Amino acid sequence: MLVVMNHGATSEQIEDVCERLRMLGVSPHPIPGIERMAIPVTGNTEMIDPQQIELMPGVMKVVRVGKPFKLVAREYKPEDTVINLDGLTIGGDELVVIAGPCAVESREQLLEVAHAVKEAGAVILRGGAFKPRTSPYSFQGLGERGLEILAEAREQTGLLVVTETIDPENVSLVEKYADILQVGARNMQNFTLLKRIGRSRKPVLLKRGISATIEELLMAAEYIFSEGNSKVILCERGVRTFNNYTRFTLDISTIPEVKRISHLPIIADPSHGTGRWRMVAPMAQASIAAGADGVIIEVHPQPKEALSDGPQSLNFQNFTKLMGVLDRIGQAMGRKIRKLNAEAH
Amino acid sequence: MLVVMNHGATSEQIEDVCERLRMLGVSPHPIPGIERMAIPVTGNTEMIDPQQIELMPGVMKVVRVGKPFKLVAREYKPEDTVINLDGLTIGGDELVVIAGPCAVESREQLLEVAHAVKEAGAVILRGGAFKPRTSPYSFQGLGERGLEILAEAREQTGLLVVTETIDPENVSLVEKYADILQVGARNMQNFTLLKRIGRSRKPVLLKRGISATIEELLMAAEYIFSEGNSKVILCERGVRTFNNYTRFTLDISTIPEVKRISHLPIIADPSHGTGRWRMVAPMAQASIAAGADGVIIEVHPQPKEALSDGPQSLNFQNFTKLMGVLDRIGQAMGRKIRKLNAEAH
Amino acid sequence: MLVVMNHGATSEQIEDVCERLRMLGVSPHPIPGIERMAIPVTGNTEMIDPQQIELMPGVMKVVRVGKPFKLVAREYKPEDTVINLDGLTIGGDELVVIAGPCAVESREQLLEVAHAVKEAGAVILRGGAFKPRTSPYSFQGLGERGLEILAEAREQTGLLVVTETIDPENVSLVEKYADILQVGARNMQNFTLLKRIGRSRKPVLLKRGISATIEELLMAAEYIFSEGNSKVILCERGVRTFNNYTRFTLDISTIPEVKRISHLPIIADPSHGTGRWRMVAPMAQASIAAGADGVIIEVHPQPKEALSDGPQSLNFQNFTKLMGVLDRIGQAMGRKIRKLNAEAH
Amino acid sequence: MLVVMNHGATSEQIEDVCERLRMLGVSPHPIPGIERMAIPVTGNTEMIDPQQIELMPGVMKVVRVGKPFKLVAREYKPEDTVINLDGLTIGGDELVVIAGPCAVESREQLLEVAHAVKEAGAVILRGGAFKPRTSPYSFQGLGERGLEILAEAREQTGLLVVTETIDPENVSLVEKYADILQVGARNMQNFTLLKRIGRSRKPVLLKRGISATIEELLMAAEYIFSEGNSKVILCERGVRTFNNYTRFTLDISTIPEVKRISHLPIIADPSHGTGRWRMVAPMAQASIAAGADGVIIEVHPQPKEALSDGPQSLNFQNFTKLMGVLDRIGQAMGRKIRKLNAEAH
Repeated sequence: MLVVMNHGATSEQIEDVCERLRMLGVSPHPIPGIERMAIPVTGNTEMIDPQQIELMPGVMKVVRVGKPFKLVAREYKPEDTVINLDGLTIGGDELVVIAGPCAVESREQLLEVAHAVKEAGAVILRGGAFKPRTSPYSFQGLGERGLEILAEAREQTGLLVVTETIDPENVSLVEKYADILQVGARNMQNFTLLKRIGRSRKPVLLKRGISATIEELLMAAEYIFSEGNSKVILCERGVRTFNNYTRFTLDISTIPEVKRISHLPIIADPSHGTGRWRMVAPMAQASIAAGADGVIIEVHPQPKEALSDGPQSLNFQNFTKLMGVLDRIGQAMGRKIRKLNAEAH
Repeated sequence: MLVVMNHGATSEQIEDVCERLRMLGVSPHPIPGIERMAIPVTGNTEMIDPQQIELMPGVMKVVRVGKPFKLVAREYKPEDTVINLDGLTIGGDELVVIAGPCAVESREQLLEVAHAVKEAGAVILRGGAFKPRTSPYSFQGLGERGLEILAEAREQTGLLVVTETIDPENVSLVEKYADILQVGARNMQNFTLLKRIGRSRKPVLLKRGISATIEELLMAAEYIFSEGNSKVILCERGVRTFNNYTRFTLDISTIPEVKRISHLPIIADPSHGTGRWRMVAPMAQASIAAGADGVIIEVHPQPKEALSDGPQSLNFQNFTKLMGVLDRIGQAMGRKIRKLNAEAH
Repeated sequence: MLVVMNHGATSEQIEDVCERLRMLGVSPHPIPGIERMAIPVTGNTEMIDPQQIELMPGVMKVVRVGKPFKLVAREYKPEDTVINLDGLTIGGDELVVIAGPCAVESREQLLEVAHAVKEAGAVILRGGAFKPRTSPYSFQGLGERGLEILAEAREQTGLLVVTETIDPENVSLVEKYADILQVGARNMQNFTLLKRIGRSRKPVLLKRGISATIEELLMAAEYIFSEGNSKVILCERGVRTFNNYTRFTLDISTIPEVKRISHLPIIADPSHGTGRWRMVAPMAQASIAAGADGVIIEVHPQPKEALSDGPQSLNFQNFTKLMGVLDRIGQAMGRKIRKLNAEAH
Repeated sequence: MLVVMNHGATSEQIEDVCERLRMLGVSPHPIPGIERMAIPVTGNTEMIDPQQIELMPGVMKVVRVGKPFKLVAREYKPEDTVINLDGLTIGGDELVVIAGPCAVESREQLLEVAHAVKEAGAVILRGGAFKPRTSPYSFQGLGERGLEILAEAREQTGLLVVTETIDPENVSLVEKYADILQVGARNMQNFTLLKRIGRSRKPVLLKRGISATIEELLMAAEYIFSEGNSKVILCERGVRTFNNYTRFTLDISTIPEVKRISHLPIIADPSHGTGRWRMVAPMAQASIAAGADGVIIEVHPQPKEALSDGPQSLNFQNFTKLMGVLDRIGQAMGRKIRKLNAEAH
């Protein structure tokens, strides 16, 4: 931490700041400059709120040098976290493709999609049973019936299942059916939910909030870690910018940045991240080429019938074509798309 | 709703779109243009998801003409909503000033602030007992003890109390103590929470999410309305932009825009909306001059000691000075800052 | 300047950094911390590009403490700059209202507006003769004929004239007719133009670029200062954000921030800053209440006929009404709207 | 174009709008809806400013259906534009890599880089001789001497040369030396410059403005086209968002969007687009995987010595490694990185 004093700060003000820092258990080292005094601070500064010091008379600004997260930081754990689900790994050499409809609409729909995406090479099935929707009048999911259908699809195909859980009370129900619990973008800072999920034993797919900074995303993961669950997969799903030709701007540079400062795996969601099905394939390709550990793609048998988020879904043909390109880009990156064993199930 | 077809859309594609629209219970009126076909749609189009049509072959785009919210729209209720709390009104001619610390830190602190802000002219006391914090390691509030302290301050001063509720289970507890329930920015799209609050009889202070559109803010209010609670006060508290000299950019143009399209009252939070105490006064003044129905201001006896959000708090002296300016600006706007009766309590 | 080394930086790397800093003529003061080494740097660090040091092995980041601008900084000149134009002052106690059409369309139009805005209380006339337009097919202004009409309006009314100059070659022509040269938002970083204007003797109205930081705005002013012209009036005119209910988001917090770090006057342009005439009045009011030194307002006799930017123009009636409110808000702020003397002209 | 009337618009207001539209040479087709009247408009609506109609009494909004650009639109010219420079093509099957230092610093530096990037597989050399810099005190380039050095490098290596031109007067000079004229992001809406370049016979590399919409980028290209120069290569170079871990957010989704609505080639600049050398490789890879026609990369012999923008430059080793990955990703995309013939020069 560095405290920078104003141009005309008095020696009394400087002494006040130093004394306060010492009271907080850290060591100030004032260094006079030509223009102003700088006070580097050593010791366990992570627990100090820089804004408290910033408010003291004579202080120009306080610069935090370290990061506010700990357990999820690469400095804390230099090697990559690899999450293992019955032999399938996320965060290692393998690339995973998660696919399925936005929402579970019916047994027929889900099973049809599940078989199709398995055929094309996906290993995890997505599908919402509880849907947080902007409008109270929109379809909000089939609820537990949707979870049952997802479980049946797993039985039939061997695909693992990821699905969203929307509030603390809802977690216990979703845990019974899902292999991976999803936290949606709108709930990334629902701290009660994060704490509850931190006490689950299931891996978590944590989506970046719509305008969350990377630091906030990692702090949300830190909440889950701090309660004991260290199986967190991050997901970039687009942020809000001035651009209006996509629903969100998929921020691909998040991928290398997260890899640099954290040990957690990260995947990309080009379907929600663009909201335009024509962009899903190029942005999925770009994500893998930037180092993502996988992608999550919306696939729908007849996208025009979809009850939610249709225009961002691929049909089977486009999804199959995309898988071919991803295979080749994965190889160009020295990685390999994970496929299900023929003999599984 | 208007459906615009591609340049080379076939007559079959156009017919498919029209047929689908008719099946959905609305009426298409295709009009050939020089460059492309446009299909205005009449009828009850609010229940149709435009994205479903956008996906059909030959469709270039679908333009929604109406708004996705209903109960909170000015078209639905042309006159301003005025919320009455024991004679104090929000949304009418009176301006309300809500003030207090970010968090309730101790009985002494809160009572000191409560008496001071009442003295200066505030009518509602703010103070968090449950604090949603970005870091799991930050102070998260005194919990129910904080609520008790708030209630004691109300007893002593006659100020009404607004405080945040952070999850559905927590609502019943907060309802027992607070006069107004606050939904924080990070929970603006916590739909389970919104629905629970919709079943409360208490007024709600609903803060705009950090990058929420105005439409999303009003849809969040619509969730509360749709469950039966129509006492919603909106609050502009800053959005995230590329600017880095404030923590957020207080988006003052929200105020006249909300007034135009909705009948709900709206106040501004320049403390969180800027994160810099030096900006609180000018931005509070600007909010009132733009037509806000009030402001919510962080005040702290010794801001440098505050356990959370100190640098955005005013001390008593600055708050009192601000109240004087707001009085004059309110008069310039033909409105009047609401004060407590001398005889109350 | 502070150099922060990586967690595991070697003593050799630290020595390399220190040596390089010494070669650049400044003094490093390495201080070991628990987690990492910090190196405060004293001396004339303003001429050092922090990015050069950031690239050296072992360096985590370099934090600039000072500001990159000098002549326009309040530290350099603590008292407010007051620009005097024949007795009219900008940046002092007086508030100025600049008004007129977006573009000079005809002699009749401009003279009608000029008389009307003078009547309502404006002191400076705006009107574009050279218009930078997004589309090559849009009306680009009357050119020199427009300047002649502006000069005639000044003769008739006594209003001063501000008008835009669009390239270095064009400056000499505009200087002959205008009292204040305007640099538009799209040219805020047209450095050749800024240098040419820096050699003019006329005051400059410098508009903030559409996504310029405040630092960039002040650096643009520094370009003009560095060539010898210190009569710069800044103008906040809206930035681009994710909001889509206005054309731009008028960033009112710029006003107190500029006042804090610079001595230059600043006005606001709510017409371009919102693009919606219904918002012009509330946002003009808010700007004055936040401490702006004036506003620039588009006014048009029959806005629906305007050749450019019609929907953001006020008609005479609305402008006159706004002037009344601004008068009262100015008084609430302890300032006074400058009016032309009855006897002038 | 579609005109939507307010809920309570009178039939007189509707008739006024229709009459005005007819006067403007287009045909209104009013259609009564349940809630409001919609007026689709057919005819040559491109020349009508929608804002003029929006201002009329009773009008709620005007929706533009078509696009404001013409010559650069894919509807105008369905096949991709392929720019041919002495056999090297941009926009076809080949991928081009442009590389070199940010600024030409000396003859030795530039020649060293030129030979190194040619060796690694680049075909075009970049390097600024005229540098638009945010600060008037920063190095602004070697000027014509820099151009001479670039020409010498071309002689020695056979690389083509792209370099920036900064104002209309400067174009004639740069044309004498460069194979491709570059328009920088800050000049994307310097319309006088665009018009001058539109009269050049050289191809143009047009960088997207820092917060320009895609529409504005294409309108800037339209300016160049409208003066007769149709050899425009677009360049995505990052936009400004709330993210602060990169200097800009490289908006990769621009690439497929431009390909969809325009016939022009587009490349990406991950060096300026991120400002962080560690991100250059992943983002270059992502750009090619998203369909870009090439990349432009900053390379510097000893990045820590660079006079400008060092931290975003790759050294020779990292650049060579990147070329290997791009080769493989290009193949995965069915394209091929263009290399210089060994025998050339």
